[in-house]
Amino acid sequence: MPHAQLPWDTLFVHADIATMAHGRYNIIKDGAIGVSNGKIQWIGPYEKLQTDRTIAHEVINCKDQWILPGFVDCHTHLIWAGSRSNEFEMRLSGARYEQIAKQGGGIAATVKAVRDASADRLFTIASQRISHFLSRGTTCVEIKSGYGLDLENELKMLAVADRLNQQFPLHICPTFLGAHALPPEYKGRTDDYVDLIINTMLPGIKHQGIASAVDVFCESIAFSLAQTKRLFTAATDMGLPVKLHAEQLSDSGGAALAAQFNALSCDHLEYLSLDGVKAMAHAGVTAVLLPGAYYMLKQTRIPPVRDLIRLDVPMALATDLNPGTSPVYDMAAVMNMGCVLFGLTCEQALAGATINGAKALGLGNCKGSLETGKDADFVVWDIDSPADLSYQMGICCVNKVVITGKIAYNT
Amino acid sequence: MPHAQLPWDTLFVHADIATMAHGRYNIIKDGAIGVSNGKIQWIGPYEKLQTDRTIAHEVINCKDQWILPGFVDCHTHLIWAGSRSNEFEMRLSGARYEQIAKQGGGIAATVKAVRDASADRLFTIASQRISHFLSRGTTCVEIKSGYGLDLENELKMLAVADRLNQQFPLHICPTFLGAHALPPEYKGRTDDYVDLIINTMLPGIKHQGIASAVDVFCESIAFSLAQTKRLFTAATDMGLPVKLHAEQLSDSGGAALAAQFNALSCDHLEYLSLDGVKAMAHAGVTAVLLPGAYYMLKQTRIPPVRDLIRLDVPMALATDLNPGTSPVYDMAAVMNMGCVLFGLTCEQALAGATINGAKALGLGNCKGSLETGKDADFVVWDIDSPADLSYQMGICCVNKVVITGKIAYNT
Repeated sequence: MPHAQLPWDTLFVHADIATMAHGRYNIIKDGAIGVSNGKIQWIGPYEKLQTDRTIAHEVINCKDQWILPGFVDCHTHLIWAGSRSNEFEMRLSGARYEQIAKQGGGIAATVKAVRDASADRLFTIASQRISHFLSRGTTCVEIKSGYGLDLENELKMLAVADRLNQQFPLHICPTFLGAHALPPEYKGRTDDYVDLIINTMLPGIKHQGIASAVDVFCESIAFSLAQTKRLFTAATDMGLPVKLHAEQLSDSGGAALAAQFNALSCDHLEYLSLDGVKAMAHAGVTAVLLPGAYYMLKQTRIPPVRDLIRLDVPMALATDLNPGTSPVYDMAAVMNMGCVLFGLTCEQALAGATINGAKALGLGNCKGSLETGKDADFVVWDIDSPADLSYQMGICCVNKVVITGKIAYNT
Repeated sequence: MPHAQLPWDTLFVHADIATMAHGRYNIIKDGAIGVSNGKIQWIGPYEKLQTDRTIAHEVINCKDQWILPGFVDCHTHLIWAGSRSNEFEMRLSGARYEQIAKQGGGIAATVKAVRDASADRLFTIASQRISHFLSRGTTCVEIKSGYGLDLENELKMLAVADRLNQQFPLHICPTFLGAHALPPEYKGRTDDYVDLIINTMLPGIKHQGIASAVDVFCESIAFSLAQTKRLFTAATDMGLPVKLHAEQLSDSGGAALAAQFNALSCDHLEYLSLDGVKAMAHAGVTAVLLPGAYYMLKQTRIPPVRDLIRLDVPMALATDLNPGTSPVYDMAAVMNMGCVLFGLTCEQALAGATINGAKALGLGNCKGSLETGKDADFVVWDIDSPADLSYQMGICCVNKVVITGKIAYNT
């Protein structure tokens, strides 16, 4: 038989599969996945494979391990320089996040370190983090800028994200977060900085085609609702999708505003009101829950998970990896926290880490679940059941990671 | 120069070292450690090495990484069979630990699985966990029996612990925990089971010399204070040190009792009273804090950390690794929880994971800190400061693990 007529490039057999289609396990016992051109061509029970369809360039026997969709980590600040473990000690001594921020620590400390770092240095540091993510089962990562806070340094960060996307098999979604914090040179002039973002930075970002979305930190210690609206209007006018850091420390009404702009996601949401939930549900906005930051900040109010479920708002989970409030590197740990701290079930946590993460990035049609026609991004796990991922803490049971049908990591 | 006259087997140079002597960092910048016969022969600043003392069979350049004492995980139930991720789901649906225990789940489910498993099977499963511990920087582990609950199966578990001790470089301390739970065949006859432990199991354990200590779970759902006293009396009469699961879910007065018996440690301690703290301080008992179980059980009352510090009771941290209430596999994650949930500083957390863990096992004179004459058990970490271990979550920065001077794990 000529090479080109082989039905699939690779066939994975004898795995139990949780497809996560429609956000449910949808378990296939002793299943098989046929992959060609990076896409899932066939998925189903092994016994339903027709004999002539089992021919593939390569057949990989998964020996009764589990295949789950690769993690989609839809909210990270993965590119930074410097360390902030000293602030961790400060918080342990009772200092609050707002206090640290007001004292010029917090984001400002990282901004200085990032501005001082070369693109090569940032790439080297971020590469270690991306390699780690890959080894823990993440196949798609969003990375925000937001530690540059001027056009040159925001572009530097986004260029590093682009280079990571080219040099690593993971799919990386870059987000422009110029409105992360007020840079020190604009102290007391927040509206002027918003003008800079709208008039200079956004056009520059748009021109380079280097960001998939625009994010804003809407909070008393960051940007107001009115400023957020101006930024969203400008981004939307340029055809860039928006998303929002909303209602993390207080209810600013950001989620409802974001819903008006058909935002991809609203993230954090500890103080989200019922009206905010309704607005998100109406507009089809994904809720991104970040239990790592909730945990590290010792917050006591959890997002309105019951309302989100009742009104059918997709809930994603993400690491929020950042040096200040969530130095959390493992999606499985985040799933555990989603269950223990926010009361998700293991199935909801896995949906949050896969299909709903993809939805939060506007990639729900091609990633996050194992269905015919979708990208062949999945992880072979040495576990007894999908619940094990949420249940265990501090152990990694990855056997291999497959991205667009190719083995990207193997233990 | 003849081989035998070389001063050290191995010399580790150019590492920043936190010795943890007396429970403090005691940092040596650009330090060196000379090792012979498994012991630390010399430790200090590299510049103070005399030239002729730098000669060793092997010199290992640590390239400015950090050396910290290996983790001493002083409270684990590491040997078990079966999975209890289903109970995790039950708890997420609102079931309490006591309810699950009363319904025959909980420990009883694991007892059945352990009794049904062969020693070889238990060894295979536990080996994976020990290998994982080693890769995360643990060099000494306590392992409790307590899922056999009859002489044959308790001996089976302790024999597996002994085999692990022989086949892995880690030092393993076996603890007899026959009084972990009431076996089903003794339902309603707790005192009869205590008689069995005292009259049959303890003598058998003692005869085989297979346990370093005797532990009891003193709690309303397990063994009463009076039963604990009987068990401690019998163990002490046989010359076996005691320790206690105390005041986890209620204040039973167990800590004060344990102090009367000069227990090695009291563990959990969420409901420990000030009188209990005083009794422990007076008797020199180590407090073992288990934030993983606190976190997984969604407890809301933390141990009296301020009182323990004020009265100078050493505080250890341990994983409490077990399938029901603490499927937590990583001492660094436990240190993070100790800081975030219990308010320890990073230095206290590291002392808890090293020197105070060693004290809890009666090994404070030979393990847990890096001092001349102690065992050369340490970890080379790729971190910027010791605080990073507590600060980061879900990433492992082990470079290499050294046990009795030999490299036991290398990345």
